Amino acid sequence: MTTKIAILGSTGSIGTQTLQLVDRYPERFSVAALTSNTNAELLLEQIIRYKPLYAAMADEKAAQTIAHKIPESTHLLTGQQGLLEIASVPEADTLVVAVVGIAGLPIVMKGIAAGKRIALANKEALVTGGAMVTAAMAARGDRILPVDSEHSAIFQCMNGENPSAIRRLILTASGGPFHNTLIEKFSEITLARALKHPNWKMGRKITIDSATLMNKGLEVMEACWLFNMPMTKIDVIIHPESIIHSMVEYNDGAVMAQMSNPDMRLPILYALEYPAQASAYPERRPCGVKPLDLLEIGKLTFSKPDLQKFPCLGLAYQVMRMGGTAPTVLNAANEVAVEWFLREKIHFCDIPKLIEHTIFHTEIIDHPSLDDIYETDRQVREVLHGNDNWKRG
Amino acid sequence: MTTKIAILGSTGSIGTQTLQLVDRYPERFSVAALTSNTNAELLLEQIIRYKPLYAAMADEKAAQTIAHKIPESTHLLTGQQGLLEIASVPEADTLVVAVVGIAGLPIVMKGIAAGKRIALANKEALVTGGAMVTAAMAARGDRILPVDSEHSAIFQCMNGENPSAIRRLILTASGGPFHNTLIEKFSEITLARALKHPNWKMGRKITIDSATLMNKGLEVMEACWLFNMPMTKIDVIIHPESIIHSMVEYNDGAVMAQMSNPDMRLPILYALEYPAQASAYPERRPCGVKPLDLLEIGKLTFSKPDLQKFPCLGLAYQVMRMGGTAPTVLNAANEVAVEWFLREKIHFCDIPKLIEHTIFHTEIIDHPSLDDIYETDRQVREVLHGNDNWKRG
Repeated sequence: MTTKIAILGSTGSIGTQTLQLVDRYPERFSVAALTSNTNAELLLEQIIRYKPLYAAMADEKAAQTIAHKIPESTHLLTGQQGLLEIASVPEADTLVVAVVGIAGLPIVMKGIAAGKRIALANKEALVTGGAMVTAAMAARGDRILPVDSEHSAIFQCMNGENPSAIRRLILTASGGPFHNTLIEKFSEITLARALKHPNWKMGRKITIDSATLMNKGLEVMEACWLFNMPMTKIDVIIHPESIIHSMVEYNDGAVMAQMSNPDMRLPILYALEYPAQASAYPERRPCGVKPLDLLEIGKLTFSKPDLQKFPCLGLAYQVMRMGGTAPTVLNAANEVAVEWFLREKIHFCDIPKLIEHTIFHTEIIDHPSLDDIYETDRQVREVLHGNDNWKRG
Repeated sequence: MTTKIAILGSTGSIGTQTLQLVDRYPERFSVAALTSNTNAELLLEQIIRYKPLYAAMADEKAAQTIAHKIPESTHLLTGQQGLLEIASVPEADTLVVAVVGIAGLPIVMKGIAAGKRIALANKEALVTGGAMVTAAMAARGDRILPVDSEHSAIFQCMNGENPSAIRRLILTASGGPFHNTLIEKFSEITLARALKHPNWKMGRKITIDSATLMNKGLEVMEACWLFNMPMTKIDVIIHPESIIHSMVEYNDGAVMAQMSNPDMRLPILYALEYPAQASAYPERRPCGVKPLDLLEIGKLTFSKPDLQKFPCLGLAYQVMRMGGTAPTVLNAANEVAVEWFLREKIHFCDIPKLIEHTIFHTEIIDHPSLDDIYETDRQVREVLHGNDNWKRG
């Protein structure tokens, strides 16, 4: 049986790797829809190659540059509304949600409502709307399929196990490019250095989030929702080799770990092949990942995350304790801060300061509706963009 | 529901740890039978404490020293035949087979025929009679439950997975006390040093087998039978910290690993609690293992086994390729060699030489019956004991 996939964010890193898997297993996957925010050139290429029934481009102007070149068999939608429509097209059964930012939340909610399976690479949907997303999914008797390497690792380590026998989850973090940088030298951190991730090739936003450890903070929040775990049962451990992607400790003292050479095709394929019936085995087919050679690697090391150097991780735990819209505030402030850092408007060390300041100056709504979340997100951005004190570049 | 256990070898390391678990979960386990080879004092203590319906002592003289002190409710059997009778007593549903040596094979075969679940800590049953044991168990639609830490780790890593998606098994080995000893210094190895295992406290025979890596060789053979894997899909990797107990690599490139602080109570409890129904979760209850702290451990290291220093491992692969009674010859020769080394009759470096010599001077039977196996075992011992060249002590 062919899985009909809609890839939301098909021109990004996860999107293109998903298409590599479609190339590898054409009998197992077909492409129902492709979307991009702004990358018109690559989206057009993908449309011509994969002939989806639908394509969507968030940026209306970019869409105009390719509209006339698109084959008649593909229906082109535009704007955020166009992207959102893709989430419920009847011709897709699985959504790969690889869009960046809070735009993932409405897509996921609409996909769940439309009965789609959700392979989730977007962090913000769970960080901001985790309570609603998981409730809606549980009501359908299904679960979100994680595409992140860490959450996929935990998911794999939970395979065939009793969730109530879990003592804790252990998320691994590479530590990013500044793991070995002394705190005294943090003032000398440049954008170029922050963009050099030691182990993974990823988008710019997530690379900076890895450098601040905010990425790991967001993952802790996601793990809470994905695996129905209290924050107190989720630990972060620095593991610079990025070979163990995460672990699960059980009540008997056993720690199950999932390892591989870093390659996102593995978690993408695992999510796409995860069986709908609880009784079936997850399929594990070759996906091009270089086989792991522990002899070549020689050693795996572990250390404690330094919350003084990386306050973003502490902030993530803090907003989860606060609950309500606090994670939404953190997420929006972080997006603005990273954007400004990428434009060299603020320094690396300003990122956590800007976020902390924003959390303490924004009203938190305890049991937010989806609209409360979107409104909080909008407000935080508006307030920050109106505050010139932070734009010192 | 209470699991009624017969512990064959209750006074040994695995036996006493099994009884610790009975102490911990009296509502889950009851003791139907206890056996020992020669340790009358401890067996008597255990009989008084656990009040089994049956007890057996292989050594008739030792049995006589306690026979009059045993409560009437316990039926005492003696001799190897007495031990064997325990394997089919109707009051037990699970056998913990923790006897040492080829004596495990008839016990396992009888237990299988009697419909018992088999938690197997004895290596020789599979090494010598693996073909018959696994065929008999498969015919019953059940499987042997491994108690070894390595095989339990593999079993745990296969939980909920499709066995046909396995690319290879990776057995870890501590490397034993001579992992860092130069080959030039092997002539200086003493019995006292060989008995000091860096990570596990075990019986004397298995401690020497760990020092020669024969233990790992026997485990490779066991893994072939337990998991229906060709030898070519089983690798051994040296991991001196003994934290990762073994790993399974799947076709998608994922390597699942099971870790814990070294403590046999974990694999024993896992085997005892493993559900009979394929659909149920294996239970994971606390068993007293010290929680794993990877921060304290700091690093896990890996290296290649040195077959020049440890020819026993190569011999194990060799006899598996030869098949038939070749593993039985290796096992018997190894038992004699280790016994002689323990009595300081031969040197550490003579162990593999004696085994290799025996393999090449013993006729191998291709498709042996159980009797062929016992007869081969007996012959090898007889020939070796009749050959004074090796007894140089």
